[in-house]
Amino acid sequence: MPSINIDFVQDLLSALRLNDRPWSGASGGAPDRRLEEACARLMKPGGEASRIAAAAEALEAWQRLDPAQRAAFFRRLLDDLGPDVDALRGAYAAWEAAMAARRTEAPDAPEQESPEAAFARLFEAVEPRRQGLLRALNLCPGGTIALVRMREDLLAAAKADPSLAPLDVDFAHLFASWFNRGFLVLREIDWNTPAAILEKIVAYEAVHEIRDWDDLRRRLDPADRRCFAFFHPATGDEPLVFVEVALTDGVPGAIAPVLEGGGAMNPRDADTAVFYSISNCQGGLKGVTFGSFLIKQVVQELSRELPNLKTFVTLSPVPGFAAWLERTAQDDPLAADLRARLAAGAWREDEAERKALVPRMERRTAQYLLEGKRRDGRPEDPVARFHLGNGAMLAEVHWPADLSDSGIERGCGAMVNYLYDLDRIEARHEAFAKEGAVAAAPGVKRLLKSQEKAA
Amino acid sequence: MPSINIDFVQDLLSALRLNDRPWSGASGGAPDRRLEEACARLMKPGGEASRIAAAAEALEAWQRLDPAQRAAFFRRLLDDLGPDVDALRGAYAAWEAAMAARRTEAPDAPEQESPEAAFARLFEAVEPRRQGLLRALNLCPGGTIALVRMREDLLAAAKADPSLAPLDVDFAHLFASWFNRGFLVLREIDWNTPAAILEKIVAYEAVHEIRDWDDLRRRLDPADRRCFAFFHPATGDEPLVFVEVALTDGVPGAIAPVLEGGGAMNPRDADTAVFYSISNCQGGLKGVTFGSFLIKQVVQELSRELPNLKTFVTLSPVPGFAAWLERTAQDDPLAADLRARLAAGAWREDEAERKALVPRMERRTAQYLLEGKRRDGRPEDPVARFHLGNGAMLAEVHWPADLSDSGIERGCGAMVNYLYDLDRIEARHEAFAKEGAVAAAPGVKRLLKSQEKAA
Amino acid sequence: MPSINIDFVQDLLSALRLNDRPWSGASGGAPDRRLEEACARLMKPGGEASRIAAAAEALEAWQRLDPAQRAAFFRRLLDDLGPDVDALRGAYAAWEAAMAARRTEAPDAPEQESPEAAFARLFEAVEPRRQGLLRALNLCPGGTIALVRMREDLLAAAKADPSLAPLDVDFAHLFASWFNRGFLVLREIDWNTPAAILEKIVAYEAVHEIRDWDDLRRRLDPADRRCFAFFHPATGDEPLVFVEVALTDGVPGAIAPVLEGGGAMNPRDADTAVFYSISNCQGGLKGVTFGSFLIKQVVQELSRELPNLKTFVTLSPVPGFAAWLERTAQDDPLAADLRARLAAGAWREDEAERKALVPRMERRTAQYLLEGKRRDGRPEDPVARFHLGNGAMLAEVHWPADLSDSGIERGCGAMVNYLYDLDRIEARHEAFAKEGAVAAAPGVKRLLKSQEKAA
Amino acid sequence: MPSINIDFVQDLLSALRLNDRPWSGASGGAPDRRLEEACARLMKPGGEASRIAAAAEALEAWQRLDPAQRAAFFRRLLDDLGPDVDALRGAYAAWEAAMAARRTEAPDAPEQESPEAAFARLFEAVEPRRQGLLRALNLCPGGTIALVRMREDLLAAAKADPSLAPLDVDFAHLFASWFNRGFLVLREIDWNTPAAILEKIVAYEAVHEIRDWDDLRRRLDPADRRCFAFFHPATGDEPLVFVEVALTDGVPGAIAPVLEGGGAMNPRDADTAVFYSISNCQGGLKGVTFGSFLIKQVVQELSRELPNLKTFVTLSPVPGFAAWLERTAQDDPLAADLRARLAAGAWREDEAERKALVPRMERRTAQYLLEGKRRDGRPEDPVARFHLGNGAMLAEVHWPADLSDSGIERGCGAMVNYLYDLDRIEARHEAFAKEGAVAAAPGVKRLLKSQEKAA
Repeated sequence: MPSINIDFVQDLLSALRLNDRPWSGASGGAPDRRLEEACARLMKPGGEASRIAAAAEALEAWQRLDPAQRAAFFRRLLDDLGPDVDALRGAYAAWEAAMAARRTEAPDAPEQESPEAAFARLFEAVEPRRQGLLRALNLCPGGTIALVRMREDLLAAAKADPSLAPLDVDFAHLFASWFNRGFLVLREIDWNTPAAILEKIVAYEAVHEIRDWDDLRRRLDPADRRCFAFFHPATGDEPLVFVEVALTDGVPGAIAPVLEGGGAMNPRDADTAVFYSISNCQGGLKGVTFGSFLIKQVVQELSRELPNLKTFVTLSPVPGFAAWLERTAQDDPLAADLRARLAAGAWREDEAERKALVPRMERRTAQYLLEGKRRDGRPEDPVARFHLGNGAMLAEVHWPADLSDSGIERGCGAMVNYLYDLDRIEARHEAFAKEGAVAAAPGVKRLLKSQEKAA
Repeated sequence: MPSINIDFVQDLLSALRLNDRPWSGASGGAPDRRLEEACARLMKPGGEASRIAAAAEALEAWQRLDPAQRAAFFRRLLDDLGPDVDALRGAYAAWEAAMAARRTEAPDAPEQESPEAAFARLFEAVEPRRQGLLRALNLCPGGTIALVRMREDLLAAAKADPSLAPLDVDFAHLFASWFNRGFLVLREIDWNTPAAILEKIVAYEAVHEIRDWDDLRRRLDPADRRCFAFFHPATGDEPLVFVEVALTDGVPGAIAPVLEGGGAMNPRDADTAVFYSISNCQGGLKGVTFGSFLIKQVVQELSRELPNLKTFVTLSPVPGFAAWLERTAQDDPLAADLRARLAAGAWREDEAERKALVPRMERRTAQYLLEGKRRDGRPEDPVARFHLGNGAMLAEVHWPADLSDSGIERGCGAMVNYLYDLDRIEARHEAFAKEGAVAAAPGVKRLLKSQEKAA
Repeated sequence: MPSINIDFVQDLLSALRLNDRPWSGASGGAPDRRLEEACARLMKPGGEASRIAAAAEALEAWQRLDPAQRAAFFRRLLDDLGPDVDALRGAYAAWEAAMAARRTEAPDAPEQESPEAAFARLFEAVEPRRQGLLRALNLCPGGTIALVRMREDLLAAAKADPSLAPLDVDFAHLFASWFNRGFLVLREIDWNTPAAILEKIVAYEAVHEIRDWDDLRRRLDPADRRCFAFFHPATGDEPLVFVEVALTDGVPGAIAPVLEGGGAMNPRDADTAVFYSISNCQGGLKGVTFGSFLIKQVVQELSRELPNLKTFVTLSPVPGFAAWLERTAQDDPLAADLRARLAAGAWREDEAERKALVPRMERRTAQYLLEGKRRDGRPEDPVARFHLGNGAMLAEVHWPADLSDSGIERGCGAMVNYLYDLDRIEARHEAFAKEGAVAAAPGVKRLLKSQEKAA
Repeated sequence: MPSINIDFVQDLLSALRLNDRPWSGASGGAPDRRLEEACARLMKPGGEASRIAAAAEALEAWQRLDPAQRAAFFRRLLDDLGPDVDALRGAYAAWEAAMAARRTEAPDAPEQESPEAAFARLFEAVEPRRQGLLRALNLCPGGTIALVRMREDLLAAAKADPSLAPLDVDFAHLFASWFNRGFLVLREIDWNTPAAILEKIVAYEAVHEIRDWDDLRRRLDPADRRCFAFFHPATGDEPLVFVEVALTDGVPGAIAPVLEGGGAMNPRDADTAVFYSISNCQGGLKGVTFGSFLIKQVVQELSRELPNLKTFVTLSPVPGFAAWLERTAQDDPLAADLRARLAAGAWREDEAERKALVPRMERRTAQYLLEGKRRDGRPEDPVARFHLGNGAMLAEVHWPADLSDSGIERGCGAMVNYLYDLDRIEARHEAFAKEGAVAAAPGVKRLLKSQEKAA
């Protein structure tokens, strides 16, 4: 029972003579005009077939717009396709009247609408016309991912022109429905995954770059390396978020052996699963969070398959550490000394120097994560906010752990492990959510109490 | 890459100790109390795992409610989980203020919010809290179909208590997003379809009852019989709407040979595809129309596979004909005579009598379909409204064509063909939509002009 | 990546103008003539396309033969398509000569073929021409199952005319290669299985008849009922052998609760898996045994999925028991008395009578299974031979356990459990294979030592 | 209904404690001893579970043997696991006796075996014991591909020691059954194919090397580039043979634009399908030919999908051309001159020189293909033998067409098109098979009649 939507639309377009054009050349007319014209057709009542064709036409034209034309289109959506102001005012007034009538406790006159019914009309009247347009664009196969990409453009455009920002509410509203957690599908990614998906994994990896197909294979093919992703039925082969996992014996303290050492373990002998890379794939789904759930579901999957796994931890970067240390060094001579020696780089060759730095660096990493706070009292480090917010605990601190350029530049080479303990995850989540309590292992807390010496 | 959501939730529930209960017995506590308590947890911010568990708990409890308890739950949704009235009023006032500020053409003071931004806040404020609850219930696998069923209950409850009707706006709003046409998947149903789906086809067939598996096989297995259904990724194996098709040589004028005669044609020799049964499966998706699109997509599919097919018609019941004839007979002696002879039933045995009735019955059927109108000017017959609204044309009229009990009782034994001509479907759709124009073949129109004689 | 063989052959036949015939009517010419002519083409060297077409033609003609024509075809295979006698004699003589030359220990003369090379030629020369024909018939999709059915006809024909029996060696030789265990695929059969397969399960069930789809559903759909089958890639959706399993709490002693009681257990609470029906589906695969392996593989599957399962037993009929008891009764007055009371049937209503018969019937069942032997020393009961030969142990004996007509008629209503204990299965298999040792539980052996009393 | 064989065997081995060894280290004992011991167990009757384990053990040990040990194993198969000589002699004598008895026309004495029955026994007696061993090795999942690889080793070993060659008859006999055409499955290979298969395509491409994944993508992803492969159910993801296809406008005369120019055509506008690379993947399946059939099936597939395709041609190398030209040059001064100018290479830069060489080179290529014959009268060129033997026609000759190193070295830069015309394929196949007739287009024949001038 294969799905047969896509060919159908091709045929439909053919039947409607809408794509009788050179295979890959410019269609007739300027794309911004064509987009406008197609959207106008989409907003009118019309036969379904011609509306699907109009949606396809509009999205095709959209591809051809330059950023300025896209911004202009967003502007029109915002200015011209808002709510029907009169209808909205009328519905609001009717609702207030119905509320007032009920408050007077007069028995509802038969002709008086109930506040609930009036509110239902208000709820409908408040929907801006652009909501209908966005839903209509989704009629066309491929519409969902096109709209996700369109929102990515909107977020960029709104940076340049903040007055466009209110339009994001429309996308966010729609995506909250469409990408409801209940619709997501978890799939394992491995060496039997289609190449068309794998090349997206390569492109979307945001933490530890995948250099080429050999590098990819090292992360996917060995029995002790795993990868899982969330997909959505309407966006097909587009991963939304994925996590890479290493099965190991004990908790690793550096990234290089994880990236290169696949294949050494029999998965049934491993006691630890390490989540060493989590990447969101769709900028257009900003704010629609999946990552937290992905980790927990993968913990469940792996627990069931491999009961020998006892520990589920991340091996995570500390991306805000370098900036924090720089700020700290302005007032703190010891931190300034540490920064200078780090930058001097003798520790890369000189083992004695490195050994001298280890306790100082690990102490400072712990300090940053436990004490470095934003104004709202949350940790300054975005990765820490994510995992602590999920209910994880800061378990270990490592230095030197990531000697890649970006690892040094943003995190001074430090990495940490966040521990996911399913039995305590809810309690930790709530403590963090309510009180901002940062769960940390005793060893990490002890680091803080240790004395730093410039030595 | 199998999807692994369902087991996951089982395991999650186990891990959370939420389903440590007898396998199929009563859970702890009265179900209405449990539902309320689970919904309360769903409305609070909380860890995702516990929210999924709460959704599962709520839906499980819902299953155990009796109709009165369900109505009470709907009442609470309507009364207690409406909008935050103060926030709504505040947002509305701010929007009016922003509109006014712009109207005064005063340069926007830096602190003045733009009308667009104010409207975005209003758009969010108007969302009643129950929208969030419904979306949260969908966190749990199986949530979507459970909510569709819940709306079915609501529609029933609102019949008894119309004050519940405004709540339907919330379901309709959500379903319009979730069941957006772009998410539907067309699948062919045949004898290789899983039994779990086939038994649903048997249960949902609403036009010509499927008596047993042999009857089902007669409709699905022969090469000249086809069936297509729309599915939605989030409702899995639940068909939303399906159509049964016979490939024939010429347009058939009676249903019995279609139901029983499968297997006689080589599909490559057929010139006609007959849509002889279309069934909506989910009462809870009322108003979310799929059927129109299904027919058009199936026309496309079949055209591509079998270029020999030249004609696409329905063989449709005329369900309102008997009631119309009864009303007409009150003032029209010829119609009264016709009704009486029909009821007498001699025509069933007596060929001369039958022959005498044929022109009169076909004339009356045409009259009913062309002239029988509702107050809004649309045809009285619901099946006619559906197909004419899709852009089809009334092509032929047949009597006697359906001698089943329901065929006689509702349609006096008449059936008709509606023709789907892809080249004219859009034009006919528009003419019907705008002017209520009923497209009919010349032969059908001629019937009307013929003179009826009591014989 | 769908397989696309079948359409291909359709097209090929079309291209070759070989099936330009009425859709389902008689082809040109008498089918026995057509078969002969197609086989003649298959035996000649020729282009592949025309050979495939000839294979399809031959198998189509075969379908139309009556039994006498089929027997005549077998006769021709045997008489006319044997080995090339001259070539065989020449190759044999050359082999003997090469053996003799080596024996004389004369250094191999350069022109003298080695015995190994000579044997290789003999090995090829001994292949009768019909082997090539049978392989060529398999060129056509659907050929494999058609040949399996052809052998079924051969086995029937050879009963009537034993001189055809030697032909079976050719089929057996081919099938031993084709149905090599390594090619079989185990699949679970459940309510999501296509109807086209399920109706075969209904048709092939040989032990406890499946009355209708409701009955089938009772066996497949509940979570505590399972079914597994072996398939072969070349025979597609044709099951070769299948086993039905009930997950229970304790070992059941009667069949009716097993057939009807599905759904009562949570599979995770069951401690026992009961194999209550094993059916071979293809008479044409006689002697190519799968059943033994199926049980062991299913034991493994279930063990992995449900570690709570501790006991794997059958609930098996005792089909030769009635005949044995009848023979025994000729010399044994107690047995004759037992038979008479069984036949009288008072035990069906009268509990006291039934209680009186239970120990006697169970004792006799045990006696039959432990002492009733064929001339080769193996148990007389075919089901016992199968399970004991697999390494199972006779664990329990039950009466009355199967009150169906066939259960009474063939097994006097008795049933037994054979226990599969993976740790001891190999040892028991070997003891049975070497010494004919019947593994039986102490309780069963004790039954034998008990004294039978006539009342 | 997933297949679950592989895990099963893992579990079985675990249960039998046969793989309680380090994950990827040496197993206990020297591998040649272990192989011998496992084969001994496989030859004995035994329980199935232990035989599967023995097969797995044997194949695992085989992997660890060095070439000398493998040759020694082949030697043992040949010397020690031949037929039972006494049984063979007895069966042969009985067959001759039965033949003689029938010849004497004496009515068959009741005790006299029929010649057919005697032959059946002879047919079984002639089977060497190693046949059973090879079949038994196939019990283990992965056995089939392991045996294909084993034969590859045998073919290599038999080159060094021709006395091993007779053993190949046993593999060839088995593979002719197992890889019967009817079991093969055609699959399309594209960018949605699993990476695990794609990397095999890269490895097995034998005609035009695939440099990296980008190169692969250029051949698979564009809509006007296709690839098809045959697979066998028992060897899973191992392609047996594959063909790469370009859809073009007109017949191309050079390879570089084909390799690099994907994506320029709308497939529905193409009139030609070019088979530009055909690779056999499994050396161990030598003599089991698939390629001929693959091309014809792909022609059918593409014809059905794209009725606009009118011409099906190859773009093929001429690998024996350079050697033939060298030989010819010894006696033919014009050929010697041509060779020298070719080697000088001025034509690479100098267009006049190139233009001067074109007619001479194309004439010589045609001469080589039409007149260069082996002793058996077949064309000397192996690619020509393959396509002409399939029923294709030599349609065009091109120079310069392949400037890759191997294209120059083996084919002097020439390439040719063989045309597959389904209407004439059988006739051409037969003419070539019977009379060695080389089908060539008039234009190619005319080339031969042209006069070569040294310029």
